[in-house]
Amino acid sequence: MWQLYQFPLCPFSRKVRLLLGEKGVGYELVRESPWNRRDEFLHLNPAGQTPVMVEDAQGSVLVDSQAICEFFEETVDKPSLINGTAVQRAEIRRLVSWFDTQFYNDVTGPLLHERMIKRLNARPATPDAKALREAMKAAIGHLDYTDYLLDHRNWIAGATFSLADLAAAAQISVVDYLGGIDWKGHEQTARWYMGLKSRPSFRPLLAERMEVIGPAPHYANVDF
Amino acid sequence: MWQLYQFPLCPFSRKVRLLLGEKGVGYELVRESPWNRRDEFLHLNPAGQTPVMVEDAQGSVLVDSQAICEFFEETVDKPSLINGTAVQRAEIRRLVSWFDTQFYNDVTGPLLHERMIKRLNARPATPDAKALREAMKAAIGHLDYTDYLLDHRNWIAGATFSLADLAAAAQISVVDYLGGIDWKGHEQTARWYMGLKSRPSFRPLLAERMEVIGPAPHYANVDF
Ligand SMILES: N[C@@H](CCC(=O)N[C@@H](CS)C(=O)NCC(=O)O)C(=O)O
Ligand SMILES: N[C@@H](CCC(=O)N[C@@H](CS)C(=O)NCC(=O)O)C(=O)O
Repeated sequence: MWQLYQFPLCPFSRKVRLLLGEKGVGYELVRESPWNRRDEFLHLNPAGQTPVMVEDAQGSVLVDSQAICEFFEETVDKPSLINGTAVQRAEIRRLVSWFDTQFYNDVTGPLLHERMIKRLNARPATPDAKALREAMKAAIGHLDYTDYLLDHRNWIAGATFSLADLAAAAQISVVDYLGGIDWKGHEQTARWYMGLKSRPSFRPLLAERMEVIGPAPHYANVDF
Repeated sequence: MWQLYQFPLCPFSRKVRLLLGEKGVGYELVRESPWNRRDEFLHLNPAGQTPVMVEDAQGSVLVDSQAICEFFEETVDKPSLINGTAVQRAEIRRLVSWFDTQFYNDVTGPLLHERMIKRLNARPATPDAKALREAMKAAIGHLDYTDYLLDHRNWIAGATFSLADLAAAAQISVVDYLGGIDWKGHEQTARWYMGLKSRPSFRPLLAERMEVIGPAPHYANVDF
């Protein structure tokens, strides 16, 4: 049985969980707080980051969310989530990288830092209002881009549902939990996100809570 | 004919060029300075980053070095650079991500910023001594890790030559150009890097110069 080292609001672990859910791969959650830099965890992943997956029976250790997704895409072929022609697959991977790096650096990372990490300190610090404002402004720019994509395509990366939808939903769900998304004026993305939320792969994520901070009121509503 | 938008010291473009060289794919270089945020370039890649590849005849645009490498790995099968079992391929991708993000964020990015970007300003700024010192200290830690890997394996990701070697060499070559690597005490990595430097795919990179800053004296010597 695979074990997944993660914490409830890690967007990269969420991307992996959505993919495992879609493919019907079973796994066990192991709670890890990477900011504690536990020796045993650093031994599994010198980068000290979640997600990490471990299969004890085979002694396999998988590190890095994209390496993990590619692994399960290669070993569990249905449904394919990096699909289509080579050019279409490149477009899926471009957008996965867009959400994993641009969206995370501009929005999810700063919000997690201000609203979650700062509360975990021995002496909790207050969020920096300017940093929060900038992250929420960046969120609007990013949702304008997903609106634009969904104006031209059925799904984030093209005509079919793909890992790019999961990567986008993983980041957006964490930001929505943290109250960082203003859904007004983003109908295209809101409609797409409602569809994602009602998928069985999404349900376990919506039910989970991070102890130090509760979700925005509408967070778990499929119809918001 | 593919065109590759890049500048001589972009490590991600170097990774792509090494892979194209190993696979014998022809391409044309197009000089791009992403920090100028040219409208036409932002239109190709909203992230505003190099590398980007364009094939005009087919209207294909590929963005993000890893999406580009996966594309050519899928479409040009020999030699395979993401090879072996699914677990071995996951290890290759883990290390590619390690060099593209950890090594880049700790070492290459700060050095490029201090030694190159600051000189490109209308009023060139002097490098920050503390930032340079930290980047060079981080470089030592990273080379300790590659030494450790190469103590246990023939190549960076395992028994065979792979994209992980190219990703590592791409970052290291830029840092070496900028004089940020102290080779003393890193015999394993130095020997491996000498081997890489003498590959035909590496030669064009060693001959190129960035106008604003010359390379360290030993940079292009295969036997240093
Ligand atoms: N490229 C990595 C990024 C993972 C990542 O940034 N994880 C965060 C949690 S959301 C983390 O562990 N941060 C702790 C740290 O960087 O020290 C992936 O896709 O798996
Ligand atoms: N994940 C991207 C990273 C590319 C990247 O960071 N490129 C740098 C040049 S080395 C860049 O264009 N920076 C300009 C910017 O971020 O505005 C890839 O692998 O292609």
